[in-house]
Amino acid sequence: MKFITTIEELQQSIKKHKKSQQSIGFVPTMGFLHEGHLKLLSVARQQNDILILSIFVNPLQFGENEDFDSYPRNMERDARLAEEAGADYIFAPSVSEMYENEPSVTVRVEKRTNVLCGKSRIGHFDGVATVLTKLFNLVQPDRAYFGMKDAQQAAVVSGLISDFHFPIELVPVETVREDDGLAKSSRNVYLNDSERMQAPHLYKALQAGKEMILKGEKSPASIIKFVSEYISEHTDGIIDYAEIYTYPELEELRVRKGRGILAIAVKFTKARLIDNITFELK
Amino acid sequence: MKFITTIEELQQSIKKHKKSQQSIGFVPTMGFLHEGHLKLLSVARQQNDILILSIFVNPLQFGENEDFDSYPRNMERDARLAEEAGADYIFAPSVSEMYENEPSVTVRVEKRTNVLCGKSRIGHFDGVATVLTKLFNLVQPDRAYFGMKDAQQAAVVSGLISDFHFPIELVPVETVREDDGLAKSSRNVYLNDSERMQAPHLYKALQAGKEMILKGEKSPASIIKFVSEYISEHTDGIIDYAEIYTYPELEELRVRKGRGILAIAVKFTKARLIDNITFELK
Repeated sequence: MKFITTIEELQQSIKKHKKSQQSIGFVPTMGFLHEGHLKLLSVARQQNDILILSIFVNPLQFGENEDFDSYPRNMERDARLAEEAGADYIFAPSVSEMYENEPSVTVRVEKRTNVLCGKSRIGHFDGVATVLTKLFNLVQPDRAYFGMKDAQQAAVVSGLISDFHFPIELVPVETVREDDGLAKSSRNVYLNDSERMQAPHLYKALQAGKEMILKGEKSPASIIKFVSEYISEHTDGIIDYAEIYTYPELEELRVRKGRGILAIAVKFTKARLIDNITFELK
Repeated sequence: MKFITTIEELQQSIKKHKKSQQSIGFVPTMGFLHEGHLKLLSVARQQNDILILSIFVNPLQFGENEDFDSYPRNMERDARLAEEAGADYIFAPSVSEMYENEPSVTVRVEKRTNVLCGKSRIGHFDGVATVLTKLFNLVQPDRAYFGMKDAQQAAVVSGLISDFHFPIELVPVETVREDDGLAKSSRNVYLNDSERMQAPHLYKALQAGKEMILKGEKSPASIIKFVSEYISEHTDGIIDYAEIYTYPELEELRVRKGRGILAIAVKFTKARLIDNITFELK
Protein backbone atom coordinates (compact mmCIF):
# COMPACT_ATOMS: atom_id res chain seq x y z
CA MET A 1 0.00 0.00 0.00
CA LYS A 2 1.20 3.46 -0.94
CA PHE A 3 0.65 6.46 1.34
CA ILE A 4 0.29 9.65 -0.72
CA THR A 5 -0.02 13.20 0.55
CA THR A 6 0.48 15.34 -2.56
CA ILE A 7 -1.87 15.97 -5.46
CA GLU A 8 0.96 15.62 -7.94
CA GLU A 9 1.93 12.15 -6.77
CA LEU A 10 -1.71 11.06 -6.81
CA GLN A 11 -2.19 12.36 -10.36
CA GLN A 12 0.87 10.46 -11.56
CA SER A 13 -0.39 7.20 -10.07
CA ILE A 14 -3.89 7.69 -11.47
CA LYS A 15 -2.50 8.43 -14.93
CA LYS A 16 -0.58 5.16 -14.85
CA HIS A 17 -3.60 3.08 -13.82
CA LYS A 18 -5.88 4.84 -16.33
CA LYS A 19 -3.37 4.13 -19.08
CA SER A 20 -3.38 0.43 -18.26
CA GLN A 21 -7.19 0.62 -18.15
CA GLN A 22 -7.48 -0.64 -14.57
CA SER A 23 -10.77 0.06 -12.81
CA ILE A 24 -10.56 2.33 -9.76
CA GLY A 25 -12.73 2.07 -6.65
CA PHE A 26 -12.80 5.09 -4.33
CA VAL A 27 -13.77 5.37 -0.68
CA PRO A 28 -13.64 9.02 0.48
CA THR A 29 -13.52 9.42 4.27
CA MET A 30 -12.51 11.80 7.05
CA GLY A 31 -10.50 9.00 8.63
CA PHE A 32 -10.77 7.53 12.15
CA LEU A 33 -12.01 4.41 10.41
CA HIS A 34 -14.74 2.26 11.91
CA GLU A 35 -16.51 -0.88 10.75
CA GLY A 36 -18.74 1.13 8.42
CA HIS A 37 -15.69 2.32 6.50
CA LEU A 38 -14.21 -1.18 6.49
CA LYS A 39 -17.41 -2.49 4.92
CA LEU A 40 -17.10 0.15 2.18
CA LEU A 41 -13.49 -0.88 1.59
CA SER A 42 -14.40 -4.55 1.52
CA VAL A 43 -17.16 -4.06 -1.06
CA ALA A 44 -14.94 -1.76 -3.15
CA ARG A 45 -12.04 -4.22 -2.97
CA GLN A 46 -14.14 -6.91 -4.63
CA GLN A 47 -15.36 -4.70 -7.49
CA ASN A 48 -12.20 -2.92 -8.68
CA ASP A 49 -8.62 -3.46 -9.80
CA ILE A 50 -7.33 -0.54 -7.74
CA LEU A 51 -8.68 0.58 -4.36
CA ILE A 52 -8.09 4.14 -3.17
CA LEU A 53 -9.04 5.47 0.25
CA SER A 54 -8.90 9.19 0.92
CA ILE A 55 -8.55 10.56 4.43
CA PHE A 56 -9.20 14.27 4.62
CA VAL A 57 -10.91 16.20 7.38
CA ASN A 58 -12.48 18.84 5.15
CA PRO A 59 -12.73 22.24 6.87
CA LEU A 60 -15.24 23.44 4.25
CA GLN A 61 -17.94 21.11 5.55
CA PHE A 62 -17.69 22.15 9.20
CA GLY A 63 -19.80 25.03 10.48
CA GLU A 64 -18.32 27.78 12.65
CA ASN A 65 -19.43 26.14 15.87
CA GLU A 66 -18.61 22.63 14.78
CA ASP A 67 -15.73 20.44 15.82
CA PHE A 68 -13.18 20.70 12.99
CA ASP A 69 -10.23 21.08 15.35
CA SER A 70 -11.31 18.38 17.75
CA TYR A 71 -12.47 15.93 15.08
CA PRO A 72 -10.77 12.63 16.00
CA ARG A 73 -7.71 11.64 13.96
CA ASN A 74 -5.55 8.52 14.09
CA MET A 75 -3.59 8.15 10.87
CA GLU A 76 -1.39 5.30 12.06
CA ARG A 77 -4.30 3.08 12.98
CA ASP A 78 -6.19 4.08 9.82
CA ALA A 79 -3.21 3.14 7.65
CA ARG A 80 -2.97 -0.27 9.28
CA LEU A 81 -6.71 -0.94 8.86
CA ALA A 82 -6.66 0.25 5.25
CA GLU A 83 -3.74 -2.01 4.43
CA GLU A 84 -5.53 -4.96 6.04
CA ALA A 85 -8.62 -4.09 3.97
CA GLY A 86 -6.54 -4.34 0.82
CA ALA A 87 -6.31 -0.67 -0.12
CA ASP A 88 -3.69 0.12 -2.77
CA TYR A 89 -3.44 3.80 -1.85
CA ILE A 90 -4.26 6.13 0.98
CA PHE A 91 -4.53 9.72 -0.22
CA ALA A 92 -4.19 11.93 2.85
CA PRO A 93 -3.47 15.52 1.80
CA SER A 94 -3.01 18.45 4.15
CA VAL A 95 -5.57 21.26 4.19
CA SER A 96 -3.13 23.55 2.38
CA GLU A 97 -2.56 20.89 -0.29
CA MET A 98 -6.28 20.67 -0.99
CA TYR A 99 -7.00 24.39 -0.61
CA GLU A 100 -3.85 26.16 -1.73
CA ASN A 101 -5.70 29.46 -1.96
CA GLU A 102 -9.15 30.60 -0.97
CA PRO A 103 -11.36 28.63 -3.37
CA SER A 104 -12.26 30.54 -6.53
CA VAL A 105 -15.11 28.12 -7.26
CA THR A 106 -17.34 26.05 -4.97
CA VAL A 107 -20.29 23.75 -5.46
CA ARG A 108 -23.65 24.89 -4.16
CA VAL A 109 -26.15 22.15 -3.38
CA GLU A 110 -29.58 23.52 -4.28
CA LYS A 111 -31.74 20.55 -3.30
CA ARG A 112 -31.92 17.64 -0.83
CA THR A 113 -30.21 19.72 1.89
CA ASN A 114 -32.99 21.55 3.63
CA VAL A 115 -34.29 18.46 5.45
CA LEU A 116 -33.04 15.91 8.01
CA CYS A 117 -29.57 16.72 9.40
CA GLY A 118 -28.91 19.26 6.62
CA LYS A 119 -31.57 21.63 7.95
CA SER A 120 -29.41 22.59 10.92
CA ARG A 121 -26.05 22.41 9.11
CA ILE A 122 -26.07 25.38 6.75
CA GLY A 123 -23.38 25.04 4.09
CA HIS A 124 -22.36 21.56 5.24
CA PHE A 125 -23.31 19.81 2.00
CA ASP A 126 -21.81 22.62 -0.12
CA GLY A 127 -18.52 21.76 1.56
CA VAL A 128 -19.05 18.03 1.02
CA ALA A 129 -19.94 18.51 -2.66
CA THR A 130 -17.00 20.86 -3.26
CA VAL A 131 -14.39 18.53 -1.81
CA LEU A 132 -15.92 15.53 -3.59
CA THR A 133 -15.83 17.38 -6.92
CA LYS A 134 -12.12 17.95 -6.35
CA LEU A 135 -11.50 14.37 -5.23
CA PHE A 136 -13.55 12.84 -8.05
CA ASN A 137 -11.48 14.75 -10.62
CA LEU A 138 -8.23 13.79 -8.92
CA VAL A 139 -8.99 10.09 -8.38
CA GLN A 140 -11.16 9.60 -11.51
CA PRO A 141 -12.79 6.52 -10.01
CA ASP A 142 -15.05 4.12 -11.86
CA ARG A 143 -17.02 3.59 -8.65
CA ALA A 144 -17.37 5.60 -5.43
CA TYR A 145 -18.67 4.06 -2.20
CA PHE A 146 -20.91 5.73 0.36
CA GLY A 147 -22.61 4.27 3.42
CA MET A 148 -26.39 4.42 3.73
CA LYS A 149 -26.04 5.30 7.41
CA ASP A 150 -25.65 8.85 6.16
CA ALA A 151 -28.45 8.53 3.62
CA GLN A 152 -28.71 12.26 3.07
CA GLN A 153 -25.05 12.47 2.11
CA ALA A 154 -25.53 9.57 -0.33
CA ALA A 155 -28.56 11.40 -1.77
CA VAL A 156 -26.61 14.63 -2.23
CA VAL A 157 -23.71 12.74 -3.86
CA SER A 158 -26.17 10.97 -6.14
CA GLY A 159 -27.44 14.40 -7.28
CA LEU A 160 -23.87 15.68 -7.68
CA ILE A 161 -22.86 12.73 -9.85
CA SER A 162 -25.96 12.75 -12.03
CA ASP A 163 -26.29 16.53 -12.44
CA PHE A 164 -22.62 17.08 -13.20
CA HIS A 165 -22.44 13.85 -15.24
CA PHE A 166 -19.40 12.49 -13.45
CA PRO A 167 -18.55 9.21 -15.22
CA ILE A 168 -18.72 7.48 -11.84
CA GLU A 169 -21.02 4.81 -10.46
CA LEU A 170 -22.25 5.62 -6.96
CA VAL A 171 -22.36 2.42 -4.91
CA PRO A 172 -24.48 2.82 -1.76
CA VAL A 173 -23.50 0.35 0.95
CA GLU A 174 -25.93 -0.93 3.58
CA THR A 175 -25.54 0.28 7.16
CA VAL A 176 -23.47 -2.05 9.33
CA ARG A 177 -25.33 -3.05 12.50
CA GLU A 178 -24.63 -4.71 15.83
CA ASP A 179 -26.26 -8.11 16.35
CA ASP A 180 -29.13 -6.40 18.15
CA GLY A 181 -29.76 -4.08 15.19
CA LEU A 182 -28.16 -0.88 16.50
CA ALA A 183 -26.42 0.93 13.64
CA LYS A 184 -22.67 0.95 14.26
CA SER A 185 -21.35 4.42 15.06
CA SER A 186 -18.33 5.83 16.82
CA ARG A 187 -20.83 7.74 18.94
CA ASN A 188 -22.35 4.58 20.46
CA VAL A 189 -19.61 4.55 23.12
CA TYR A 190 -21.13 7.74 24.54
CA LEU A 191 -24.34 5.88 25.48
CA ASN A 192 -24.67 4.88 29.13
CA ASP A 193 -25.53 1.24 29.91
CA SER A 194 -29.24 1.82 30.10
CA GLU A 195 -29.29 3.87 26.88
CA ARG A 196 -27.24 1.19 25.13
CA MET A 197 -29.91 -1.35 26.10
CA GLN A 198 -32.64 0.91 24.70
CA ALA A 199 -30.87 1.96 21.50
CA PRO A 200 -31.79 -1.10 19.38
CA HIS A 201 -35.39 0.13 19.58
CA LEU A 202 -34.49 2.88 17.09
CA TYR A 203 -34.10 0.34 14.32
CA LYS A 204 -37.09 -1.62 15.58
CA ALA A 205 -39.17 1.56 15.31
CA LEU A 206 -37.95 2.08 11.74
CA GLN A 207 -38.73 -1.52 10.82
CA ALA A 208 -42.22 -1.23 12.30
CA GLY A 209 -42.74 2.06 10.44
CA LYS A 210 -41.64 0.49 7.18
CA GLU A 211 -44.05 -2.38 7.74
CA MET A 212 -46.93 0.08 8.21
CA ILE A 213 -46.00 1.79 4.95
CA LEU A 214 -45.74 -1.46 3.01
CA LYS A 215 -49.06 -2.61 4.48
CA GLY A 216 -50.73 0.40 2.91
CA GLU A 217 -50.67 3.24 5.46
CA LYS A 218 -50.81 6.35 3.29
CA SER A 219 -50.43 9.15 5.80
CA PRO A 220 -46.82 10.16 6.52
CA ALA A 221 -48.07 11.96 9.64
CA SER A 222 -49.56 8.74 11.04
CA ILE A 223 -46.37 6.79 10.40
CA ILE A 224 -44.20 9.48 11.96
CA LYS A 225 -46.52 9.65 14.96
CA PHE A 226 -46.31 5.87 15.39
CA VAL A 227 -42.50 5.79 15.08
CA SER A 228 -42.08 8.73 17.45
CA GLU A 229 -44.36 7.20 20.07
CA TYR A 230 -42.61 3.85 19.75
CA ILE A 231 -39.25 5.51 20.44
CA SER A 232 -40.61 7.59 23.31
CA GLU A 233 -42.14 4.50 24.91
CA HIS A 234 -39.07 2.28 24.58
CA THR A 235 -36.19 4.73 25.16
CA ASP A 236 -35.19 7.79 27.18
CA GLY A 237 -34.08 9.45 23.94
CA ILE A 238 -35.54 12.72 22.72
CA ILE A 239 -36.57 12.76 19.10
CA ASP A 240 -34.74 15.43 17.09
CA TYR A 241 -36.53 14.53 13.88
CA ALA A 242 -38.51 11.69 12.31
CA GLU A 243 -39.21 12.30 8.64
CA ILE A 244 -40.40 10.48 5.51
CA TYR A 245 -39.34 11.43 1.99
CA THR A 246 -38.85 10.11 -1.52
CA TYR A 247 -35.34 8.79 -2.03
CA PRO A 248 -32.89 10.04 -3.24
CA GLU A 249 -34.76 13.29 -4.05
CA LEU A 250 -35.72 13.83 -0.39
CA GLU A 251 -39.01 15.40 -1.42
CA GLU A 252 -42.46 15.04 0.10
CA LEU A 253 -43.85 11.54 -0.47
CA ARG A 254 -47.04 12.24 -2.41
CA VAL A 255 -47.68 9.13 -4.46
CA ARG A 256 -47.36 5.48 -3.49
CA LYS A 257 -44.73 4.73 -6.11
CA GLY A 258 -40.94 4.54 -6.18
CA ARG A 259 -38.39 4.60 -3.41
CA GLY A 260 -38.75 6.26 -0.06
CA ILE A 261 -36.88 6.76 3.19
CA LEU A 262 -37.89 6.93 6.83
CA ALA A 263 -35.15 8.63 8.88
CA ILE A 264 -34.71 9.57 12.52
CA ALA A 265 -32.33 11.40 14.83
CA VAL A 266 -32.60 10.79 18.56
CA LYS A 267 -30.74 12.59 21.34
CA PHE A 268 -29.48 10.63 24.33
CA THR A 269 -27.58 12.10 27.26
CA LYS A 270 -24.22 12.36 25.50
CA ALA A 271 -24.89 11.02 22.01
CA ARG A 272 -27.19 11.94 19.16
CA LEU A 273 -27.89 8.85 17.06
CA ILE A 274 -29.19 8.76 13.51
CA ASP A 275 -30.62 5.86 11.58
CA ASN A 276 -32.85 5.27 8.58
CA ILE A 277 -34.59 2.64 6.52
CA THR A 278 -35.53 2.75 2.84
CA PHE A 279 -38.50 1.13 1.17
CA GLU A 280 -39.86 0.52 -2.32
CA LEU A 281 -43.50 1.31 -3.14
CA LYS A 282 -45.05 -0.43 -6.12
CA MET B 1 -18.58 14.37 -38.80
CA LYS B 2 -21.20 13.09 -36.40
CA PHE B 3 -24.02 15.30 -35.14
CA ILE B 4 -25.04 14.28 -31.63
CA THR B 5 -27.92 15.63 -29.56
CA THR B 6 -28.20 13.18 -26.65
CA ILE B 7 -25.97 12.74 -23.63
CA GLU B 8 -26.15 8.98 -23.95
CA GLU B 9 -24.84 8.93 -27.51
CA LEU B 10 -22.06 11.34 -26.57
CA GLN B 11 -21.02 9.18 -23.60
CA GLN B 12 -20.85 6.08 -25.79
CA SER B 13 -18.61 7.82 -28.32
CA ILE B 14 -16.35 9.25 -25.62
CA LYS B 15 -16.01 5.85 -23.98
CA LYS B 16 -14.86 4.37 -27.28
CA HIS B 17 -12.23 7.07 -27.88
CA LYS B 18 -11.01 6.92 -24.27
CA LYS B 19 -10.63 3.17 -24.57
CA SER B 20 -8.46 3.53 -27.65
CA GLN B 21 -6.51 6.26 -25.81
CA GLN B 22 -7.16 8.96 -28.39
CA SER B 23 -6.66 12.53 -27.24
CA ILE B 24 -9.77 14.73 -27.25
CA GLY B 25 -9.84 18.46 -28.02
CA PHE B 26 -12.95 20.37 -26.98
CA VAL B 27 -14.33 23.70 -28.17
CA PRO B 28 -17.45 24.67 -26.18
CA THR B 29 -19.57 27.37 -27.87
CA MET B 30 -23.06 28.85 -28.03
CA GLY B 31 -22.98 28.40 -31.81
CA PHE B 32 -23.48 31.04 -34.52
CA LEU B 33 -19.84 30.44 -35.31
CA HIS B 34 -17.55 33.27 -36.36
CA GLU B 35 -13.87 33.45 -37.21
CA GLY B 36 -12.91 33.42 -33.55
CA HIS B 37 -14.53 30.01 -33.12
CA LEU B 38 -12.94 28.76 -36.36
CA LYS B 39 -9.53 29.75 -35.00
CA LEU B 40 -10.23 27.73 -31.85
CA LEU B 41 -11.25 24.74 -33.98
CA SER B 42 -8.19 25.08 -36.17
CA VAL B 43 -5.78 25.16 -33.22
CA ALA B 44 -7.62 22.27 -31.53
CA ARG B 45 -7.64 20.26 -34.76
CA GLN B 46 -3.85 20.32 -34.87
CA GLN B 47 -3.34 19.24 -31.27
CA ASN B 48 -5.74 16.31 -30.83
CA ASP B 49 -6.85 13.01 -32.32
CA ILE B 50 -10.53 13.79 -31.87
CA LEU B 51 -12.12 17.24 -32.13
CA ILE B 52 -15.46 17.91 -30.46
CA LEU B 53 -17.44 21.13 -30.78
CA SER B 54 -20.40 21.75 -28.49
CA ILE B 55 -23.18 24.14 -29.44
CA PHE B 56 -25.46 24.96 -26.56
CA VAL B 57 -27.11 28.25 -25.76
CA ASN B 58 -27.02 27.89 -21.99
CA PRO B 59 -30.03 29.53 -20.29
CA LEU B 60 -28.22 29.44 -16.93
CA GLN B 61 -25.73 32.10 -18.01
CA PHE B 62 -28.30 34.62 -19.23
CA GLY B 63 -29.72 37.19 -16.83
CA GLU B 64 -33.42 37.90 -16.63
CA ASN B 65 -33.20 40.89 -18.93
CA GLU B 66 -30.72 39.31 -21.29
CA ASP B 67 -31.33 37.94 -24.75
CA PHE B 68 -31.58 34.17 -24.31
CA ASP B 69 -34.60 33.85 -26.60
CA SER B 70 -33.26 36.17 -29.28
CA TYR B 71 -29.67 34.87 -29.15
CA PRO B 72 -28.78 34.15 -32.81
CA ARG B 73 -28.84 30.51 -33.91
CA ASN B 74 -27.98 28.92 -37.24
CA MET B 75 -27.29 25.23 -36.79
CA GLU B 76 -27.12 24.37 -40.47
CA ARG B 77 -24.41 26.90 -41.20
CA ASP B 78 -22.57 25.97 -37.97
CA ALA B 79 -22.56 22.30 -38.95
CA ARG B 80 -21.11 23.10 -42.35
CA LEU B 81 -18.39 25.33 -40.88
CA ALA B 82 -17.53 22.77 -38.20
CA GLU B 83 -17.21 20.02 -40.78
CA GLU B 84 -14.94 22.23 -42.91
CA ALA B 85 -12.85 22.90 -39.80
CA GLY B 86 -12.36 19.18 -39.33
CA ALA B 87 -14.57 18.58 -36.30
CA ASP B 88 -15.32 14.91 -35.61
CA TYR B 89 -18.41 15.64 -33.53
CA ILE B 90 -20.90 18.40 -32.90
CA PHE B 91 -22.65 17.95 -29.58
CA ALA B 92 -25.81 20.08 -29.71
CA PRO B 93 -28.18 19.05 -26.90
CA SER B 94 -31.54 20.63 -26.19
CA VAL B 95 -32.07 22.60 -22.97
CA SER B 96 -34.16 19.76 -21.54
CA GLU B 97 -31.41 17.26 -22.39
CA MET B 98 -28.84 19.31 -20.42
CA TYR B 99 -31.18 20.32 -17.60
CA GLU B 100 -33.61 17.45 -17.24
CA ASN B 101 -34.77 18.78 -13.87
CA GLU B 102 -34.10 21.95 -11.93
CA PRO B 103 -30.37 21.59 -11.11
CA SER B 104 -29.71 20.06 -7.69
CA VAL B 105 -26.12 21.34 -7.74
CA THR B 106 -24.54 24.39 -9.36
CA VAL B 107 -21.08 25.92 -9.39
CA ARG B 108 -20.61 29.23 -7.66
CA VAL B 109 -17.69 31.34 -8.88
CA GLU B 110 -16.31 33.15 -5.84
CA LYS B 111 -13.53 35.15 -7.48
CA ARG B 112 -12.60 36.87 -10.75
CA THR B 113 -16.24 37.78 -11.42
CA ASN B 114 -16.78 41.09 -9.68
CA VAL B 115 -14.78 43.09 -12.25
CA LEU B 116 -14.94 43.93 -15.97
CA CYS B 117 -18.05 42.57 -17.71
CA GLY B 118 -18.88 40.29 -14.78
CA LYS B 119 -19.65 43.23 -12.50
CA SER B 120 -22.91 43.94 -14.31
CA ARG B 121 -23.80 40.32 -15.11
CA ILE B 122 -24.71 38.81 -11.74
CA GLY B 123 -24.73 35.02 -11.87
CA HIS B 124 -23.44 34.91 -15.46
CA PHE B 125 -20.21 33.13 -14.63
CA ASP B 126 -21.97 30.74 -12.22
CA GLY B 127 -23.99 29.65 -15.25
CA VAL B 128 -20.87 29.37 -17.40
CA ALA B 129 -18.98 27.34 -14.78
CA THR B 130 -21.96 25.06 -14.13
CA VAL B 131 -22.49 24.15 -17.78
CA LEU B 132 -18.74 23.72 -18.33
CA THR B 133 -18.49 21.37 -15.34
CA LYS B 134 -21.21 19.27 -16.94
CA LEU B 135 -19.64 19.43 -20.40
CA PHE B 136 -16.13 18.70 -19.11
CA ASN B 137 -17.39 15.54 -17.39
CA LEU B 138 -19.31 14.47 -20.48
CA VAL B 139 -16.60 15.16 -23.06
CA GLN B 140 -13.61 14.34 -20.82
CA PRO B 141 -11.29 16.34 -23.05
CA ASP B 142 -7.50 16.42 -22.80
CA ARG B 143 -7.55 20.06 -23.91
CA ALA B 144 -10.24 22.76 -23.91
CA TYR B 145 -9.98 25.89 -26.05
CA PHE B 146 -11.08 29.40 -25.11
CA GLY B 147 -10.57 32.67 -26.93
CA MET B 148 -8.73 35.53 -25.23
CA LYS B 149 -11.28 37.99 -26.62
CA ASP B 150 -13.32 37.04 -23.58
CA ALA B 151 -10.34 37.12 -21.22
CA GLN B 152 -12.50 37.14 -18.11
CA GLN B 153 -14.23 33.95 -19.19
CA ALA B 154 -10.84 32.33 -19.82
CA ALA B 155 -9.73 33.48 -16.35
CA VAL B 156 -12.82 32.00 -14.69
CA VAL B 157 -12.37 28.72 -16.58
CA SER B 158 -8.72 28.64 -15.55
CA GLY B 159 -9.85 28.92 -11.90
CA LEU B 160 -12.51 26.25 -12.43
CA ILE B 161 -10.03 23.80 -13.94
CA SER B 162 -7.30 24.35 -11.37
CA ASP B 163 -9.53 24.53 -8.26
CA PHE B 164 -11.58 21.48 -9.19
CA HIS B 165 -8.51 19.68 -10.57
CA PHE B 166 -10.10 18.80 -13.90
CA PRO B 167 -7.50 16.72 -15.76
CA ILE B 168 -7.80 19.18 -18.65
CA GLU B 169 -5.32 21.59 -20.20
CA LEU B 170 -6.83 25.02 -20.82
CA VAL B 171 -5.53 26.37 -24.14
CA PRO B 172 -6.12 30.13 -24.46
CA VAL B 173 -6.22 31.27 -28.09
CA GLU B 174 -5.24 34.75 -29.24
CA THR B 175 -7.98 37.15 -30.36
CA VAL B 176 -8.54 37.14 -34.12
CA ARG B 177 -8.33 40.66 -35.59
CA GLU B 178 -9.16 42.47 -38.80
CA ASP B 179 -6.18 43.76 -40.77
CA ASP B 180 -6.59 47.15 -39.11
CA GLY B 181 -6.45 45.59 -35.64
CA LEU B 182 -10.15 45.61 -34.73
CA ALA B 183 -10.99 42.47 -32.78
CA LYS B 184 -13.38 40.33 -34.79
CA SER B 185 -16.86 40.23 -33.31
CA SER B 186 -20.34 39.49 -34.60
CA ARG B 187 -21.28 42.87 -33.13
CA ASN B 188 -18.97 44.82 -35.49
CA VAL B 189 -21.72 44.84 -38.12
CA TYR B 190 -23.74 47.11 -35.83
CA LEU B 191 -21.13 49.88 -36.16
CA ASN B 192 -22.00 52.68 -38.59
CA ASP B 193 -19.41 53.63 -41.24
CA SER B 194 -17.83 56.35 -39.18
CA GLU B 195 -17.68 54.20 -36.03
CA ARG B 196 -16.16 51.35 -38.04
CA MET B 197 -13.36 53.73 -39.12
CA GLN B 198 -12.74 54.76 -35.51
CA ALA B 199 -12.95 51.29 -33.96
CA PRO B 200 -9.34 50.20 -34.67
CA HIS B 201 -8.29 52.91 -32.21
CA LEU B 202 -9.50 50.67 -29.38
CA TYR B 203 -6.68 48.23 -29.98
CA LYS B 204 -4.24 51.10 -30.66
CA ALA B 205 -5.15 52.52 -27.25
CA LEU B 206 -4.51 49.13 -25.62
CA GLN B 207 -1.16 48.79 -27.40
CA ALA B 208 -0.13 52.28 -26.31
CA GLY B 209 -1.21 51.52 -22.74
CA LYS B 210 0.78 48.30 -22.73
CA GLU B 211 3.83 50.19 -23.98
CA MET B 212 3.50 52.68 -21.10
CA ILE B 213 3.35 49.79 -18.64
CA LEU B 214 6.37 48.01 -20.12
CA LYS B 215 8.31 51.30 -20.17
CA GLY B 216 7.89 51.51 -16.41
CA GLU B 217 4.70 53.46 -15.67
CA LYS B 218 3.68 52.19 -12.25
CA SER B 219 0.37 53.93 -11.66
CA PRO B 220 -2.67 52.00 -12.97
CA ALA B 221 -4.67 55.23 -12.67
CA SER B 222 -2.31 57.07 -15.03
CA ILE B 223 -2.43 54.28 -17.60
CA ILE B 224 -6.21 54.08 -17.45
CA LYS B 225 -6.46 57.86 -17.79
CA PHE B 226 -4.19 57.77 -20.82
CA VAL B 227 -6.09 54.92 -22.49
CA SER B 228 -9.47 56.52 -21.77
CA GLU B 229 -8.39 59.91 -23.16
CA TYR B 230 -6.92 58.24 -26.23
CA ILE B 231 -10.23 56.52 -26.93
CA SER B 232 -12.26 59.68 -26.26
CA GLU B 233 -10.05 61.68 -28.61
CA HIS B 234 -10.08 59.18 -31.46
CA THR B 235 -13.62 57.76 -31.33
CA ASP B 236 -17.21 58.73 -30.59
CA GLY B 237 -17.44 55.75 -28.28
CA ILE B 238 -18.33 56.07 -24.60
CA ILE B 239 -16.07 54.16 -22.25
CA ASP B 240 -17.95 51.61 -20.15
CA TYR B 241 -14.82 50.50 -18.35
CA ALA B 242 -11.04 50.53 -18.68
CA GLU B 243 -9.33 48.41 -16.04
CA ILE B 244 -5.96 46.85 -15.21
CA TYR B 245 -5.55 43.62 -13.23
CA THR B 246 -3.27 40.69 -12.65
CA TYR B 247 -4.05 37.80 -14.97
CA PRO B 248 -5.69 35.33 -14.58
CA GLU B 249 -6.51 36.25 -10.96
CA LEU B 250 -8.07 39.59 -11.97
CA GLU B 251 -6.85 41.20 -8.77
CA GLU B 252 -5.40 44.65 -8.19
CA LEU B 253 -1.96 44.98 -9.81
CA ARG B 254 0.24 45.85 -6.83
CA VAL B 255 3.70 44.62 -7.79
CA ARG B 256 5.55 44.86 -11.06
CA LYS B 257 5.85 41.10 -11.50
CA GLY B 258 3.92 38.44 -13.35
CA ARG B 259 1.17 38.66 -15.89
CA GLY B 260 -1.36 41.44 -16.21
CA ILE B 261 -4.27 42.52 -18.38
CA LEU B 262 -5.55 45.85 -19.63
CA ALA B 263 -9.18 45.54 -20.71
CA ILE B 264 -11.79 47.93 -22.08
CA ALA B 265 -15.45 48.05 -23.04
CA VAL B 266 -16.66 50.90 -25.23
CA LYS B 267 -20.22 51.74 -26.23
CA PHE B 268 -20.99 52.90 -29.75
CA THR B 269 -24.44 53.79 -31.05
CA LYS B 270 -25.65 50.23 -31.53
CA ALA B 271 -22.71 48.10 -30.43
CA ARG B 272 -20.74 47.68 -27.26
CA LEU B 273 -17.23 46.45 -28.10
CA ILE B 274 -14.76 44.79 -25.74
CA ASP B 275 -11.07 44.20 -26.20
CA ASN B 276 -8.02 43.53 -24.07
CA ILE B 277 -4.28 43.07 -24.12
CA THR B 278 -2.11 41.07 -21.74
CA PHE B 279 1.45 41.83 -20.68
CA GLU B 280 4.25 40.22 -18.73
CA LEU B 281 6.11 42.18 -16.04
CA LYS B 282 9.57 40.98 -15.06
